[in-house]
Amino acid sequence: MTIHCFEPMRFHSTLGPHEPVLHVADGDTVVALTVDAHGYNWRGEQVAARPNPQTGPFYVEGAEPGDALAVRFDRLTPIRDWGFTSSILAPDVVEPRFACELPAREWIRWRIDKASGTATQETHAGALGTFTVPLEPMVGCFGVAPAGGQAISTATSGPHGGNMDYRGFRAGVTAYLPVSVPGALFFLGDGHAAQGDGEVVGTGIETAFEMEVTLRVVKGKQINGPRGEDAVSIFTIGNARPLELALQYATTEMVRWLRDDCGLDLHAASLLLGQCVRYDIGNVYDPAYTVACRLQKQCLQL
Amino acid sequence: MTIHCFEPMRFHSTLGPHEPVLHVADGDTVVALTVDAHGYNWRGEQVAARPNPQTGPFYVEGAEPGDALAVRFDRLTPIRDWGFTSSILAPDVVEPRFACELPAREWIRWRIDKASGTATQETHAGALGTFTVPLEPMVGCFGVAPAGGQAISTATSGPHGGNMDYRGFRAGVTAYLPVSVPGALFFLGDGHAAQGDGEVVGTGIETAFEMEVTLRVVKGKQINGPRGEDAVSIFTIGNARPLELALQYATTEMVRWLRDDCGLDLHAASLLLGQCVRYDIGNVYDPAYTVACRLQKQCLQL
Amino acid sequence: MTIHCFEPMRFHSTLGPHEPVLHVADGDTVVALTVDAHGYNWRGEQVAARPNPQTGPFYVEGAEPGDALAVRFDRLTPIRDWGFTSSILAPDVVEPRFACELPAREWIRWRIDKASGTATQETHAGALGTFTVPLEPMVGCFGVAPAGGQAISTATSGPHGGNMDYRGFRAGVTAYLPVSVPGALFFLGDGHAAQGDGEVVGTGIETAFEMEVTLRVVKGKQINGPRGEDAVSIFTIGNARPLELALQYATTEMVRWLRDDCGLDLHAASLLLGQCVRYDIGNVYDPAYTVACRLQKQCLQL
Amino acid sequence: MTIHCFEPMRFHSTLGPHEPVLHVADGDTVVALTVDAHGYNWRGEQVAARPNPQTGPFYVEGAEPGDALAVRFDRLTPIRDWGFTSSILAPDVVEPRFACELPAREWIRWRIDKASGTATQETHAGALGTFTVPLEPMVGCFGVAPAGGQAISTATSGPHGGNMDYRGFRAGVTAYLPVSVPGALFFLGDGHAAQGDGEVVGTGIETAFEMEVTLRVVKGKQINGPRGEDAVSIFTIGNARPLELALQYATTEMVRWLRDDCGLDLHAASLLLGQCVRYDIGNVYDPAYTVACRLQKQCLQL
Repeated sequence: MTIHCFEPMRFHSTLGPHEPVLHVADGDTVVALTVDAHGYNWRGEQVAARPNPQTGPFYVEGAEPGDALAVRFDRLTPIRDWGFTSSILAPDVVEPRFACELPAREWIRWRIDKASGTATQETHAGALGTFTVPLEPMVGCFGVAPAGGQAISTATSGPHGGNMDYRGFRAGVTAYLPVSVPGALFFLGDGHAAQGDGEVVGTGIETAFEMEVTLRVVKGKQINGPRGEDAVSIFTIGNARPLELALQYATTEMVRWLRDDCGLDLHAASLLLGQCVRYDIGNVYDPAYTVACRLQKQCLQL
Repeated sequence: MTIHCFEPMRFHSTLGPHEPVLHVADGDTVVALTVDAHGYNWRGEQVAARPNPQTGPFYVEGAEPGDALAVRFDRLTPIRDWGFTSSILAPDVVEPRFACELPAREWIRWRIDKASGTATQETHAGALGTFTVPLEPMVGCFGVAPAGGQAISTATSGPHGGNMDYRGFRAGVTAYLPVSVPGALFFLGDGHAAQGDGEVVGTGIETAFEMEVTLRVVKGKQINGPRGEDAVSIFTIGNARPLELALQYATTEMVRWLRDDCGLDLHAASLLLGQCVRYDIGNVYDPAYTVACRLQKQCLQL
Repeated sequence: MTIHCFEPMRFHSTLGPHEPVLHVADGDTVVALTVDAHGYNWRGEQVAARPNPQTGPFYVEGAEPGDALAVRFDRLTPIRDWGFTSSILAPDVVEPRFACELPAREWIRWRIDKASGTATQETHAGALGTFTVPLEPMVGCFGVAPAGGQAISTATSGPHGGNMDYRGFRAGVTAYLPVSVPGALFFLGDGHAAQGDGEVVGTGIETAFEMEVTLRVVKGKQINGPRGEDAVSIFTIGNARPLELALQYATTEMVRWLRDDCGLDLHAASLLLGQCVRYDIGNVYDPAYTVACRLQKQCLQL
Repeated sequence: MTIHCFEPMRFHSTLGPHEPVLHVADGDTVVALTVDAHGYNWRGEQVAARPNPQTGPFYVEGAEPGDALAVRFDRLTPIRDWGFTSSILAPDVVEPRFACELPAREWIRWRIDKASGTATQETHAGALGTFTVPLEPMVGCFGVAPAGGQAISTATSGPHGGNMDYRGFRAGVTAYLPVSVPGALFFLGDGHAAQGDGEVVGTGIETAFEMEVTLRVVKGKQINGPRGEDAVSIFTIGNARPLELALQYATTEMVRWLRDDCGLDLHAASLLLGQCVRYDIGNVYDPAYTVACRLQKQCLQL
């Protein structure tokens, strides 16, 4: 199990069959630097163009189409003392009539203080005064090369992962992605120091990160889209518009998980989900929305 | 503050300007029996027709159009030792192609045990064996007479409340509803002993209840749809299709709440929601879907 | 076959089980006056409140739940020399970001000239100069009392008809509606002198009408939503949000029509629709959107 | 103005920055052979893989990002005496509950007879007997390399064109596409001998074609998505899910067209669209749906 430290020189704004920057073995760990959503690095220099420039891709030895790639997020560390958000709710998340009342959006700067584990917006926010939130670091955009020779913008997401902007992808979580090309070609970037559900202002607190991930090949494991797991729960991800289609993708993938790995038929899976399922809304801002379908492991009672 | 005990003789399957069954004073408490979604009462006799027969309406003295009705759910007690659910995921919550694989739905009976605080499905559920869940009682359908002289089916929901099937309406929560007619005309019923997010099988564990609610008029409080509050959070409800419209209604109503009651302008509200908002999916089964937009009170820092 | 002339004194803004204004025999013709969407009558006096006040209901002798009511629009005559439209596209029909650029809407007055068969907007419309369109009279809102004792606002639509705002409901068309209460209880109003697809500004050219309709009971004909027919085509209507659900309702109802009346199984119906179906978008503005699924009669080749 | 005849050796299932097969001058005409949606050529040999293998790309001299590419469809000739369709409505176009009744889909073979201008399905279709439709040749999938270095599957569509499956792209129409890379890189394929609105069975009558197109660069013409024009009308295309977003894209692009080329401000454009707009539904089957917003040229009265 080797640990690879990687500082990127160039970045990708599509997930596709690009030249690997590094070959790693099954089970290796990568410690990689990432830039923020607008391409600003840990020193505050713009080194890449929007949107969501990605570090990678990493070629994982042994990964073949038909396998799954397990990505354990070991550590997600913001490495810059400032981040930014948009200032105004996106027109997508309010009533169409209300959207006409929204002012133009600006960029708000936040001070990130790792010592206290908080982010504080730098300008005075009206009745909120100086507003502080706890750091809850997450990965906004990561994934593998998509199927069919596609190269898909890091603005959006799909079965290959991509710009899901889901706060559930945090340290301690293992994500699973369907491998479509030899080596899987893993990308990551777009770290958020914090973000609410839905990414309703169109950003999290965007900043540069050091991300430590461990990459493992699950041979012969066919999945239809991203999945995840932590100590207490399992979840599946649907990336699509409209929001109900994202929910349908996520739910159907959970049924497959329960069927293939837990031996539950449609009746048992329905019984379980009917009383125990939880849904999270990842984003309702990007070209594809993201919904997570989640089950507590204790519900499985297996 | 009087406590009224009410055993219904007849039931309504629309929320509308129906003859009140009881006049209560502002601040009074009502302890009412309710039947299950198919109209079976506490003795297991069918006394009303589907869907979701309602107890009421209760006329609250002093409630006028332009006010809000505060409904505190003091106690929600299942009063029958059995309930039922549907056996299969609704076609609405899986991928259209997958929907073709779903078998016909049946009704599954559950044993409700208040001593242990659990519900157990009575038939053997394949790999799940005998499946047990904790009781988490909630009100599936409640509301007031809608605006404009409408009488709206208890199958669906809207600004007036109705069949929201949201697990967040549980004991300890105070719901707020916009008053459209004198006396508000409050209805309630359709108790669920437990239900997951989304009501994905089309039911919770449906059973008869004794529900205790305290009704209070908030004079001159104009709201655009249901709201709620408990010890730790506030939330707003959107009832609509598609799911993003429900989310838009809920988010916009939360912005109004923050503006009118907390003095936050659009910038401050955006800043707060951007990092702190949580969404719950009430139901994705009924004619109108339900989304809750939720904020922890500690986020408000006011 | 009697012809009844009816001048309304009062109006309804819900379709529901209201007191009939007239009992007519199966096959009778009604010539009724209607007011515009804002309640202004043929003399320009406001005699009813928004939205879409309806004339009626007419009780059709012999109509029972389980029958269909056939409504032939014999003549639709605008009877006022002016109408109005909204001045600006609805935020619902443009991209959310673009919606922020829309100015506030105003009411635009049009001169209606039956002699020339045209409507001309009265104020100068920038580069369009004086803008004239041919009259294409249609009924925006009509229907029967809905099922389940509901009274549903004339702002929206459903299986019972209602505010469909579909330009395909014009003279020469026979509409079919599912009967849910004895006598059907037929309502009509909201005439438009002209309207594009989608009702994209939120109105047609709204004016007062004299409408002549012939009402006929089709015994034992169960339908699930509005249908229509003219000399050259048949069509089915879906009223719902989102737009694809409206399309799904319309398509499914057309499959039932082809199956029940034309003897086509699912394969034959698919073959026919696959190459020959046409869709019209009625409205994308009202709470429920409207889509028509249409087949030329010559395609049926039966 | 040169005419280039091109017989493809290899095909693409993504639209992206691929090696051009031919460089053509601004104004040149290309006569190209195309294979059917499953990769079968004019001789019935499978020479490429699904979905919708494309001929090209053609590099058009002088085309630069920020220009538009005008593609006149001079002639669309089916060149095989058979085609195929799917046998059953897609689950996407019927009610979710009804989707459960759909049988598995099969491939239906059609005999294409250019002499009579018809296509006839070869197997007996129940009550339809032998079913014949007139040929109405169209291009299902065409476009240019997308923006941002993307390579997008020919299963779907976007601002760059792609798999729009819209019956309005027929001979005599000039389509306009936004140029994102030098030379534009034009692709085409997936000819349909006929297709109804919506591509409701998931195919048209799929066959091999000889397509003649004339390619012209419109310098400095910035457009946001596909547009089209024929002798009597202009139209804009929205490719997206859900269907209303596709409609919103199309409508907004039409407003830009009216503003930039016809000098209409938002009021005038609203007035015009409100009474005169027509919508066509291209497809409701592919990952992105397609809606056309159409205006008769005579409505413009300019």
